[in-house]
Amino acid sequence: MPERPVILACPLPRTLPLLFAPDLLRDLFDRYDVIETTDEALPALPDDTLREARYVIGQPPLTPDLLARMESLRCIFNVESNLLPNMPYEDAFARGVHVVTTGAVFAEPVAEIGLGFALSLARNIHGADADFRRGEERWGGDGNAGARLLTGSTMGILGLGALGQAVARVVQGFRPRLLAHDPWQAPSVTRAHGAEPVDLDTLLSQSDTLFVTAAVTSENQGALGAESFARMPNGASLILLSRAGVVDFDALMAAVRSGHIRAASDVFPEEPLPLDHPVRSLPGFLLSAHRAGALDIAFQRMGEMVMEDLALLDRGLPPQACKRAERETVARFRSRPVTRN
Amino acid sequence: MPERPVILACPLPRTLPLLFAPDLLRDLFDRYDVIETTDEALPALPDDTLREARYVIGQPPLTPDLLARMESLRCIFNVESNLLPNMPYEDAFARGVHVVTTGAVFAEPVAEIGLGFALSLARNIHGADADFRRGEERWGGDGNAGARLLTGSTMGILGLGALGQAVARVVQGFRPRLLAHDPWQAPSVTRAHGAEPVDLDTLLSQSDTLFVTAAVTSENQGALGAESFARMPNGASLILLSRAGVVDFDALMAAVRSGHIRAASDVFPEEPLPLDHPVRSLPGFLLSAHRAGALDIAFQRMGEMVMEDLALLDRGLPPQACKRAERETVARFRSRPVTRN
Amino acid sequence: MPERPVILACPLPRTLPLLFAPDLLRDLFDRYDVIETTDEALPALPDDTLREARYVIGQPPLTPDLLARMESLRCIFNVESNLLPNMPYEDAFARGVHVVTTGAVFAEPVAEIGLGFALSLARNIHGADADFRRGEERWGGDGNAGARLLTGSTMGILGLGALGQAVARVVQGFRPRLLAHDPWQAPSVTRAHGAEPVDLDTLLSQSDTLFVTAAVTSENQGALGAESFARMPNGASLILLSRAGVVDFDALMAAVRSGHIRAASDVFPEEPLPLDHPVRSLPGFLLSAHRAGALDIAFQRMGEMVMEDLALLDRGLPPQACKRAERETVARFRSRPVTRN
Amino acid sequence: MPERPVILACPLPRTLPLLFAPDLLRDLFDRYDVIETTDEALPALPDDTLREARYVIGQPPLTPDLLARMESLRCIFNVESNLLPNMPYEDAFARGVHVVTTGAVFAEPVAEIGLGFALSLARNIHGADADFRRGEERWGGDGNAGARLLTGSTMGILGLGALGQAVARVVQGFRPRLLAHDPWQAPSVTRAHGAEPVDLDTLLSQSDTLFVTAAVTSENQGALGAESFARMPNGASLILLSRAGVVDFDALMAAVRSGHIRAASDVFPEEPLPLDHPVRSLPGFLLSAHRAGALDIAFQRMGEMVMEDLALLDRGLPPQACKRAERETVARFRSRPVTRN
Repeated sequence: MPERPVILACPLPRTLPLLFAPDLLRDLFDRYDVIETTDEALPALPDDTLREARYVIGQPPLTPDLLARMESLRCIFNVESNLLPNMPYEDAFARGVHVVTTGAVFAEPVAEIGLGFALSLARNIHGADADFRRGEERWGGDGNAGARLLTGSTMGILGLGALGQAVARVVQGFRPRLLAHDPWQAPSVTRAHGAEPVDLDTLLSQSDTLFVTAAVTSENQGALGAESFARMPNGASLILLSRAGVVDFDALMAAVRSGHIRAASDVFPEEPLPLDHPVRSLPGFLLSAHRAGALDIAFQRMGEMVMEDLALLDRGLPPQACKRAERETVARFRSRPVTRN
Repeated sequence: MPERPVILACPLPRTLPLLFAPDLLRDLFDRYDVIETTDEALPALPDDTLREARYVIGQPPLTPDLLARMESLRCIFNVESNLLPNMPYEDAFARGVHVVTTGAVFAEPVAEIGLGFALSLARNIHGADADFRRGEERWGGDGNAGARLLTGSTMGILGLGALGQAVARVVQGFRPRLLAHDPWQAPSVTRAHGAEPVDLDTLLSQSDTLFVTAAVTSENQGALGAESFARMPNGASLILLSRAGVVDFDALMAAVRSGHIRAASDVFPEEPLPLDHPVRSLPGFLLSAHRAGALDIAFQRMGEMVMEDLALLDRGLPPQACKRAERETVARFRSRPVTRN
Repeated sequence: MPERPVILACPLPRTLPLLFAPDLLRDLFDRYDVIETTDEALPALPDDTLREARYVIGQPPLTPDLLARMESLRCIFNVESNLLPNMPYEDAFARGVHVVTTGAVFAEPVAEIGLGFALSLARNIHGADADFRRGEERWGGDGNAGARLLTGSTMGILGLGALGQAVARVVQGFRPRLLAHDPWQAPSVTRAHGAEPVDLDTLLSQSDTLFVTAAVTSENQGALGAESFARMPNGASLILLSRAGVVDFDALMAAVRSGHIRAASDVFPEEPLPLDHPVRSLPGFLLSAHRAGALDIAFQRMGEMVMEDLALLDRGLPPQACKRAERETVARFRSRPVTRN
Repeated sequence: MPERPVILACPLPRTLPLLFAPDLLRDLFDRYDVIETTDEALPALPDDTLREARYVIGQPPLTPDLLARMESLRCIFNVESNLLPNMPYEDAFARGVHVVTTGAVFAEPVAEIGLGFALSLARNIHGADADFRRGEERWGGDGNAGARLLTGSTMGILGLGALGQAVARVVQGFRPRLLAHDPWQAPSVTRAHGAEPVDLDTLLSQSDTLFVTAAVTSENQGALGAESFARMPNGASLILLSRAGVVDFDALMAAVRSGHIRAASDVFPEEPLPLDHPVRSLPGFLLSAHRAGALDIAFQRMGEMVMEDLALLDRGLPPQACKRAERETVARFRSRPVTRN
C-alpha cells in the first residue's frame, strides 16, 4: 500500500464533520493520513510531520520559518474563506504552494436569498404578510402602491466574483438588462458572464435593482455613500449581500428614510446589532441577520470542493474547484475573520 | 378617408384609461369609431350601431337575439378575463366571431410574486425581518432552521397555461427539475414549455415547491385536499396563485399547522377575509391579499394586446395576442366575476 | 367494453405504418375502430359508417353534402400538411369540426439543416471538402476568404411559424441579434419567441443570415425579388427552407452570381430540377434536393401528435399538438400538394 | 507626463497589425513605449531596456540569465498560443511573472465550424451538394439515408478547455445531453459549464457526436485508437478539432472506412497533407485544411485581450482575459509551433 499523503487539519471555526458529509469524511481518512491539530498546536508538531505535510485544511498563522519547514507542502485550503494577513503568502507563491479558499460555496445560497430580498422589496411581500396578520391588509390593487416588475428591468451587480456570478444566474428568468461593475475584472470576462461592464456611475444611475456583492478591499471601504445613493433611480432597490464595510451604513439608512430608495441587508456594521439600532424600525429596509450563506449544505459543499482539488493535486495538477489566492490581491482584502459558522 | 370600424366599449369594471395608456387611447379613438356604452345600455343602442359594430371591448350579457343583430361583429374582447356564462358562445363561434380574454397580462406579475413567495418560504425572509424588528433575530446559521435551496430542486406546476408558463420562465435561473400537470394540455406542448408532463400524484409527491396555477373548472373544484397535501414531501412549499377554489382551504391550513408543509397564498375562500379567520395567525403560511396581478402595468398591457389584435383583425387575420375562448372549454370555467381592479 | 370511436383512415401519400411506430399503431387499433379507406372510396362508405365517423386521418376531398352526412365528425387530421381547397372548411368550422395539420414535425429537421446550410456558407465547409478531395485545398488562413462568424451576428427569419420558431431555437447558442418579420403574427407573440419584430425592409437590410421559412400564400408569392436581394448586406446568406414560390428564383441566382450574397436552398421552382438548370453550376449557391424535412423520425412524430390530440378530443377537449386550420387563413395558402414522402 | 511602461514586441509569426486593429494599435503605441524587436535581436538589447521592460508580446527563447536581467518584467504575452519549452517558466513563476496565452480567441471560430461539421455529417450537406452539382441528387426521403437529428441527442466533448466550452455553448439550441471528459478539470467545474463529467469510456460509448477538443499532452498522444472508435455507437460522428496527435489517424480512417462511424477533421498528421493520402478519397470523412481558427477576426481579438490585461497589470492586478500558464501543466504540452497564421 502506497504511503498516504499527510494532511494537517485545523479547520476552526469549521470542523471536519461540518465540512465533510459522513461518506466523504470516511474517504478523506481512507485516502489521507489526516493529522487533526489546531492553529496553536501546529507549530509544535514534530519536524517529520511538518516536513511530510502535503496539505493543510485550515488557515493557521504561519511564520516564514514554519512555512519553510513544511517542505512537501502543496496547498493550503482556507475553509474560513477570508484571506487573513497571518501567513507569508509571497513565500508560498514563490515556492508554488497554492493557497485556496472555499467561500464560493456561499455564492448560491446568498444569491438565492438576494433575489428573494429583491422580490420582497419590489412587491412588499414581507410587509403585506405582516399587515395581513394584523388585520390591516389592503386588497387587490390597493395593496400594490410602489409595486414593480423585475422582468425586463435593469439589474446591476457591484462585484462580479463568485457571488455576483451566482446572482447573474438566478435572475436569468427575468431577462433583465444586466450591468456589472468590477474593477478587478477584464471587460471580456464580465461579458462572458452575461453582464455588460459599466463604470460605477452608470451602474448606480441605471440599476433598478442593485446587488452589492463586492468583498471589502483596501480600495472600496465605505465606497458607497450619500452621493452614490442619490444617483440611484427613485424607487430603486439596493440589496447588500457581501459586507457592510462597502457602504456608509448611516447614509444608506438616510437614503431609505427619505423614501428615495429601498434596501435589504444581510450584513451590518456591528454583528450582533445593538437592540436600539435605528435600522430595526426603518420602513423600506428589509433585515436579515447574516443568515444568507450559513446553510448546512454550503459547508458540506466545501468538503466536496476540497476533495475534488485534493484529487487534482495528488495527480500533479493545479486545484480548480476552490479559488486560488493571488499575489496581487491577497493583501488587499479587509474582511474581518469569522468566529462562528 | 375610409370609414373607421365601430367598437362598442363597455369595459367595466375596467375603464378605457385603465386599459390604454394616453398615447394608445388616442390611437384607439383615431383609428376606430369608439362608442362608449355600458352593459345595461348596450341592448338599447340603435339598430344601425349594433349592425355595424365590428368589435366589443367588454363582456356584456348578450342574448342570442342581440348577438344575431350584431351582424358585423368579429371579436369580443373580454377584459375582465373570466369567461362568464352570459352570452351564447356557441352562436358566436358558429359565425366565426372570436371571443378573447386578456388575462394573460397577469401571468408575469403573478409569477414574479410567486417566486418571491417561494424564496420567502424557503429562507423565512418575511419571518426573519419581523423577528429582527422585534429584536429577536437569530444570527448566522442559528437563523436558518429549515432553510432550503431552490437551485437544482424539483418544482411542480399545476396548470401550465399562461400563468404556469410564466412561472416556468421566472424560475429558469434555478435550473430546477420542472414537472407540470395539466389535464387540458398535450404532453408535447408541456415539454415544449420546458416541463416534464406528469400525473397529479407524481406532481404532488415529488415537488419540493408546488405552484398552483390552475383556473377553477367544473373538474378541479376543491381537487387538492388532505390526501393531496399528505403526499407532498415533508417540508415542501405550496404556492397558491390562481384561485382558492382549487384547494380545500381548511385541509391546507391543517397540513401547514401540522408542520408537514409550508404554504403561501394570494387567494382566499372569501375576499376580504374575516378578521377572525384562523389563517391570519398560522405560522408557516405566507399571506397576500389578492395583490399578485393587480399592477397598473398589467392593465395597460391589456390595452396593448387589444390594439395588436385589432390590427390583425382589421386585416382579416385571427387574433393572436389575446387568448381565444374555445367551444370545448368555455363552459367549464367556474371563476367568480371580478368587481374591482 | 365501450364502443370504440370510429376513425376513417385515408392518409395517402402517407401510410399508417409510416406515421405510427409499431407500438403506436397497435394502440391506435386497440383504442379506435379504424376503417382504412382511400380518398376515392370514402364517399361510397355505408351511411352508418359515415354517420359514426368521429375522426378522419387524411385529407380527402369532401363535398358539403358528404361532410354534412358525417354527423359525429370532430376532427380531420391532415397528415399531408398542406391545406388544399378540397373541402368546405367553413362548414366544418361552423359545426365546430377541427381541421388540423401535422406539418410542424418537419420544423425541427428543417431548422437543423438550415443552420447547417448557414454554417457551410459562412465557412465554405462543403467547398473546402470538395477542394481537399481534388487536392486543391488551401491551408490555414489562406482557405478562409470570406469566412464569417455567426456568434453575435444578426439573423433574420421571414415567417415565424413552427419552422421559424425552430430556427430561432437551434441558433440560440450563437446569441444572435434575432429579427423576424411575420405579417400574420402579433408583435408580442414574435417577442415571446425571442425575436424582434421588424418590417420586411429592416429584415432584409440588417440580416447577415436570412432564413426564409414562410409558407407560400396569396400575398407573398414571388415576394422576394431582385430589389429585395439588393437590399441585403454584401456577403449575407439567404437560406431558403420553405417553398421556392416565395422568391423570384432567377433573381436569386443573379444576386448570387454577382457575388453580392450567398444562398442555400432545399426547394426549387421545379422538382425534380432539369439537369441543365443553371443553378447546378452556380458557385456560392448550396444545393439540397428537398431533403430537409423528410426524415423517418419526422413522419413517426406525426403519429405521436395525432395520438396526443385524439386523447384530448376523446375527453371533449380541443386538439393542441397539431396545428389548427383557421377560417381566416385557410384559403390563403398556395402550396402544391405533395405526392411523395 | 508619467513614463510609459516598456513593451518588447517580437510577435512573429504574428505581426502587430495582425493582432491590433488600427485604433488599438494607436492606443498601444500611445500608452506604452513599444520596442519592436525579434526573437534573435532581443538578447542583444541594451541592458537598460531589458531592465525596464515590463511586458513582452511574443514568445522569444529566454535563458535563465536573460530572464533574470529583465527585472521589471511582469507578463509575457505568448501570442503564438502554444507553450514551447523555450524559457525557464519556473523562474518566471517564482518571481511572480505571468506567462499568458491568447489561444482562446480560436475557440469560437473553431467551435462554430465544428458544429457545421457535425450538421454536415448528420445530414450529408456537403455530399448532397456535390451530388446535385453532378446531376445525381436524390430527392426527398430518398436522399436521407443515415440522416440524423442533433436535437435531444447525446453530445460528448473530449477536453473542456476554452474550445470545449465554446462547443458547449454553440450546441445549446439543440438541448443535447452533454457529456464531457477532461482529466485536468474538477467535476464541479465541468458541471458549471453545463456538461456531465464522465470517464472516457462512457464518453466514447454514449456520444452520438463526439467533439475532440483536447490539446496534445504528454498523456494523451494517440490516446484515441481502434478500440476507442469501436466503442462508439454505430453511426456516431467524431469531430476532430484540436490536434491530430490525439488520435491514431490510421485507425480513425479504418473506423470510417468500415462504415462504423463518420468523421470530420480540421487537423492532420502532416500539414500540408501529401496529395496521395488515402483520407482524400475516403467517403464519410469530411475534410478541412486547418482552417477552423485562422479567421482575421480571431487574431484581432488577441490584441483586444492583450490590451485588457495590460490595463489590469498596469493597476497591479493579475491578468484575466488571457489564459495563464500553470507550473503544473506548462511542461506537459506537446503541440508543435505554428509557423504560419
